[in-house]
Amino acid sequence: MLYFEDVVVGETQRFGAYEVTRDEVVDFASRYDPQAFHLDDEAAAKTYFGRLSASGWHTCAMTMRMMVDNMKNHEQAGLGSPGVDEIRWLTPVYPGDTLRVELTTADKRRSRSKPEMGSIFGLVEVFNQHDTKVLTMKTIGLIRCRDPQGA
Amino acid sequence: MLYFEDVVVGETQRFGAYEVTRDEVVDFASRYDPQAFHLDDEAAAKTYFGRLSASGWHTCAMTMRMMVDNMKNHEQAGLGSPGVDEIRWLTPVYPGDTLRVELTTADKRRSRSKPEMGSIFGLVEVFNQHDTKVLTMKTIGLIRCRDPQGA
Repeated sequence: MLYFEDVVVGETQRFGAYEVTRDEVVDFASRYDPQAFHLDDEAAAKTYFGRLSASGWHTCAMTMRMMVDNMKNHEQAGLGSPGVDEIRWLTPVYPGDTLRVELTTADKRRSRSKPEMGSIFGLVEVFNQHDTKVLTMKTIGLIRCRDPQGA
Repeated sequence: MLYFEDVVVGETQRFGAYEVTRDEVVDFASRYDPQAFHLDDEAAAKTYFGRLSASGWHTCAMTMRMMVDNMKNHEQAGLGSPGVDEIRWLTPVYPGDTLRVELTTADKRRSRSKPEMGSIFGLVEVFNQHDTKVLTMKTIGLIRCRDPQGA
């Protein structure tokens, strides 16, 4: 089990190989982001996207799945997340793409008011199979300390 | 059709009534955020959440659906979004909740390099049926100008 004390600032983890399918792109968009360019090639051809592309929120969701699978391989004393900063959708994600994650620990800070926990600040970068960066975001995670009385 | 020139800074739109179901919470979490507290009441009872709660990404997705439905009622010359800032998951979202949105236009800026478009900066606040704020985020949207030669 990984605790606050074990988290190494500056370390980068690389993981994930998420295959983006047309069915899943359309299914997600139908439920949550039913804009024509996420549903239909013909409508998308008239836009910046050129052809059917995934909702940005779908890309975030696929990224989360890769992050949760990675956490299961490296179990953490996680306490959830208060939020995310600065999501940037840099390049459209298309059916047929395969996505992977580079997660860098940017900083960590022990809570002053709750010394049994701390915050981990991550930079998430998602790439497609051409090594083009499609998404970045700055994550915040809460994690327990191994030694609640520690410095 | 609403263009950049028509967007009123300071205006607030109120819309949406999204009913959060247990099936949908579990379905989303199974695919994209399979952490125990989003899948199972018993596991959630041991955590801060107390009982089964929606993935924060699911809350974002449900919010997007309400925003897209609202845009269809007020058609915009939208050009997509480069990203989102400062997502904050303030309160857990539970099956049985009904969510609604308050969207305030915080600012708008015409592009200097591409005078045919501008950026709209929004503050999104999502509330449950108890008027408790569950989510905030700062959106960025690109929109065409009616008059590409305008000021």
